Amino acid sequence: METIERTRPAVRFNDAQIEMAHGAGGKASRRLVEGLFLPLLANPILQALSDSALTSVNGVTLATTADGYVVKPLRFPGGSIGELAVNGTINDLAVSGARPLGLMAAFILEAGFAGETLREEVEAMASAARRAGVAIVGGDTKVVEHGFADGMYVATFGFGTVDPRVRLAAERVVEGDRVLLSGPIGDHGITILLARGDLDLEASLVSDTRPLTPFAEALIERAGSALHWMRDPTRGGVATALNELVRGRDFGVTLYEESIPMRNEVRGACEILGLDPLHIANEGQLIAVVSGEAADGALAAMRAIDGGENAACIGEVRATPPGSVLAVTSYGGSRVIDMLVGDPLPRIC
Amino acid sequence: METIERTRPAVRFNDAQIEMAHGAGGKASRRLVEGLFLPLLANPILQALSDSALTSVNGVTLATTADGYVVKPLRFPGGSIGELAVNGTINDLAVSGARPLGLMAAFILEAGFAGETLREEVEAMASAARRAGVAIVGGDTKVVEHGFADGMYVATFGFGTVDPRVRLAAERVVEGDRVLLSGPIGDHGITILLARGDLDLEASLVSDTRPLTPFAEALIERAGSALHWMRDPTRGGVATALNELVRGRDFGVTLYEESIPMRNEVRGACEILGLDPLHIANEGQLIAVVSGEAADGALAAMRAIDGGENAACIGEVRATPPGSVLAVTSYGGSRVIDMLVGDPLPRIC
Repeated sequence: METIERTRPAVRFNDAQIEMAHGAGGKASRRLVEGLFLPLLANPILQALSDSALTSVNGVTLATTADGYVVKPLRFPGGSIGELAVNGTINDLAVSGARPLGLMAAFILEAGFAGETLREEVEAMASAARRAGVAIVGGDTKVVEHGFADGMYVATFGFGTVDPRVRLAAERVVEGDRVLLSGPIGDHGITILLARGDLDLEASLVSDTRPLTPFAEALIERAGSALHWMRDPTRGGVATALNELVRGRDFGVTLYEESIPMRNEVRGACEILGLDPLHIANEGQLIAVVSGEAADGALAAMRAIDGGENAACIGEVRATPPGSVLAVTSYGGSRVIDMLVGDPLPRIC
Repeated sequence: METIERTRPAVRFNDAQIEMAHGAGGKASRRLVEGLFLPLLANPILQALSDSALTSVNGVTLATTADGYVVKPLRFPGGSIGELAVNGTINDLAVSGARPLGLMAAFILEAGFAGETLREEVEAMASAARRAGVAIVGGDTKVVEHGFADGMYVATFGFGTVDPRVRLAAERVVEGDRVLLSGPIGDHGITILLARGDLDLEASLVSDTRPLTPFAEALIERAGSALHWMRDPTRGGVATALNELVRGRDFGVTLYEESIPMRNEVRGACEILGLDPLHIANEGQLIAVVSGEAADGALAAMRAIDGGENAACIGEVRATPPGSVLAVTSYGGSRVIDMLVGDPLPRIC
């Protein structure tokens, strides 16, 4: 789900037409969300929006999230659109500190789409939902004429209840907090790029799509209220997620460039293509900001999870430069890390 | 949202490819839902599915619903895709006896779509949400390349809490119950058909899109537990909604053909086109099944609502023929009313 920060400069949407970049999760998406959706739909829950919207229901906090999926190709090494739709929605709930209670799916299918491919994707959704211990409780199907979609699109909606032990908010982040990351970045984005076959590159890379509930639960269990903020850095990557955290705040994030886990295939592909791995989409990674005191324990808890062996502390919250993400190297070099601009990898999720 | 009945014969989905009819809400949709989604995603909530899925959360019953909107054209007399997306979702909650708490929207936009048209649709959504007293608390936007969508599609998700005074279920319907309808049928479907300009017909017809919450609330207030079942007869029309009610049950519905409210424009267009008005989609009508004793009061409550002046008692629940919908005329004629087959009016919502 798109993210909107509470403290933000006024943004206007005057774009004459929708471009691919409006769906990329970077600056154009921000213009669309903050310049159009937010002023027109103005309400306090949307205003405070994070990965999930929070609503109080009879004494519990209900988290709800909505996401569309248009990934191309539909199947790729390590996953498929159906799996992505389930995991992505579960992950938006997980990083909001919520235990998923149910999912719903709205399909938009193109006439002529193979019945067998639809069956495979519904099976992928069922299997991903089972793995995460959540049920798909309802849905809807619409069909458009051949040539008015690309096989299938799906929108997924998830709801769950927020763990009362945590309060996750950018406002809770303070100087000295540590930035933890669950594993290597860029696997999903580069896998999709290679699966399209537009590039003469080969790599044994698979998407990192997976449910993040085990990570979120372990962090809540271990760090409790010392856990200040979580986010799954999908479209726009780690760079965009952290920029959304610091924007308009009196603190910044300093990343230790060498400590960011990354596979050689991702590093290599990004070098060839001139992309920053920090802008590449992930589908199974979690960023957690925890207090300095709780950081070691929280990192150990993440590493103890199957698939969390490469979790790392990748940076810290510092008073300067406020509102910015900086990456430093052990050689003393530093560079400012901005949000994603444009859309280098369209239809990534 | 698609509806699935609890008692149903085994249905198989072996269709080689998706056709427009799979999205029309009739027999092909039923094959898709019951032959593919239901067995693969099997779980008790989905199994019991009505217009909304019901989940117990901390002592309250949460209703959730999901719907995709692909209506063509995007704007039509009386409404637009944005208004439809909000009202349709609110109505699925309303007929489940739920007070809407929040909505979310997932947009799938085509690159090149006019920014101004998007603004108009977001304004239409905001206005419809305000009218119904519900907030749009979150969303998501994806963009696909030009030629891979039709301007905009939107999926809407809604959640609310079920009024504890009612229990709405086909199991509660008994012989002697009355079938009430909130107003004239077919306005939406025929309006869309005419708006496409494929036919050399003109009529001063507008879509009936509107929130049904005032009707649902008045019925709950007036009839309480004598209110047994509600449904908004969208795709597939009144015929399909009532067939879903009676299928596999030990009762049937007999409709008094002449008492079904219908505008002359709808009657005329259907005659010319060879369509049954009972199969035409509505977007702002509600069918309520109430006990015989409560029927007069419930009807009066519906008629007292602005826009409910034409509400009528259109039929009754009889023991015979079980599992069927029959229409009778005052001249003694009768005909069996089946579910919609095929898709005479694609992309109606």
